[in-house]
Amino acid sequence: MTQIILDISTSLDGFVAGPSPTLEDPLGQNGMQLHEWVFGLATWRSEHGQEGGVHDEDDALVARSLATLGAVVMGRKMFSGGSGPWEDDPNAAGWWGDEPPFRLPVFVVTHHEREPKSYPNGTVFMFVTEGVESAIEQARAAADGKDVRISGGASVATQALRAGLLDRLDIHIAPVLLGAGTRLFEGVDPMQFELVETPASPNVTHVTYVKPLPRQQGDG
Amino acid sequence: MTQIILDISTSLDGFVAGPSPTLEDPLGQNGMQLHEWVFGLATWRSEHGQEGGVHDEDDALVARSLATLGAVVMGRKMFSGGSGPWEDDPNAAGWWGDEPPFRLPVFVVTHHEREPKSYPNGTVFMFVTEGVESAIEQARAAADGKDVRISGGASVATQALRAGLLDRLDIHIAPVLLGAGTRLFEGVDPMQFELVETPASPNVTHVTYVKPLPRQQGDG
Repeated sequence: MTQIILDISTSLDGFVAGPSPTLEDPLGQNGMQLHEWVFGLATWRSEHGQEGGVHDEDDALVARSLATLGAVVMGRKMFSGGSGPWEDDPNAAGWWGDEPPFRLPVFVVTHHEREPKSYPNGTVFMFVTEGVESAIEQARAAADGKDVRISGGASVATQALRAGLLDRLDIHIAPVLLGAGTRLFEGVDPMQFELVETPASPNVTHVTYVKPLPRQQGDG
Repeated sequence: MTQIILDISTSLDGFVAGPSPTLEDPLGQNGMQLHEWVFGLATWRSEHGQEGGVHDEDDALVARSLATLGAVVMGRKMFSGGSGPWEDDPNAAGWWGDEPPFRLPVFVVTHHEREPKSYPNGTVFMFVTEGVESAIEQARAAADGKDVRISGGASVATQALRAGLLDRLDIHIAPVLLGAGTRLFEGVDPMQFELVETPASPNVTHVTYVKPLPRQQGDG
């Protein structure tokens, strides 16, 4: 059964991007440090057309996550590469280059209507102007029983959390402080989760939470 | 050899206390949720004069930490019980009652000079007006080779981190979002740590960081 999963890397002080993002450096100052734990993994390297890499606990976690993945949801800034004048250009090709490493349907939450954009490797960007919930429902249909991953940014993640749309949170806490930037959870309501598993790793702390969904009466 | 350890529980969104602390509820709204993981542990219960409790991985971690502990450093608000008019009363007995559960020298960083306060169980509160670094050095001397724990609050913890005084960070990330309150790391400089161990637990995510200390030339 499809699970809607927030899958995101943060700093210990809760930032998903550093300060002063640019088109060349959309993760902001030091923001790339949040993701360093994946760059040496065999699975990640293979997905990005690189050879080699390690087969450790982190790699197994990433491989398991990919094996059950059916569709991706992301925000406009994550598609276009951070904040800046380019993000309002409805014809921008996005930040991900000629070979976006998804190979899956990717639903981009945006205010700009535009046609889907397909790539030979199977990646298809689709643009959803009706909000996060609609993007998640379209992704659920496209995933065909596999999982839907919400990859960010913070705005889309927080909207999904607030609306009770997440079945699971896979948070990867990198051993860094960024000191400033974009916070993952800003101004949310207090909330308790069930903590499921926290595999140890020398490079990152994975935390998986399950949240009992607040559902309307008669909804299930 | 003495290690200076920041040992503190935070929410997933990085708060060490919730909003609106009062004398009765110094951890603020929902702040007690950060510490729920310890209340059922046999070691914690024994330290607080209660019977029973579980002997699990979390309990072993707390027991190991206590076994090597020689002295504690805390801020004035943690001593007096949050923010409020009472915290400026130099004669206030503190928030910890007649049997403060430390049984060790506790160095309170404050602006108010006052005499040490001793308890039959071995707890001695000493008041340090020369700042965090002085408090840590006095605690180091009192610890006599055992470790010094900085228990909070956020201000003392951040000052110690900024000044490069911490040998280790034992962060306990509780599976909760508080949404507002006092952040553990506010406005720090970007920093990378070495991640040492992250034992899994159903109730909390323990993260231990080692930071190579920035030392003056010729200091060691």
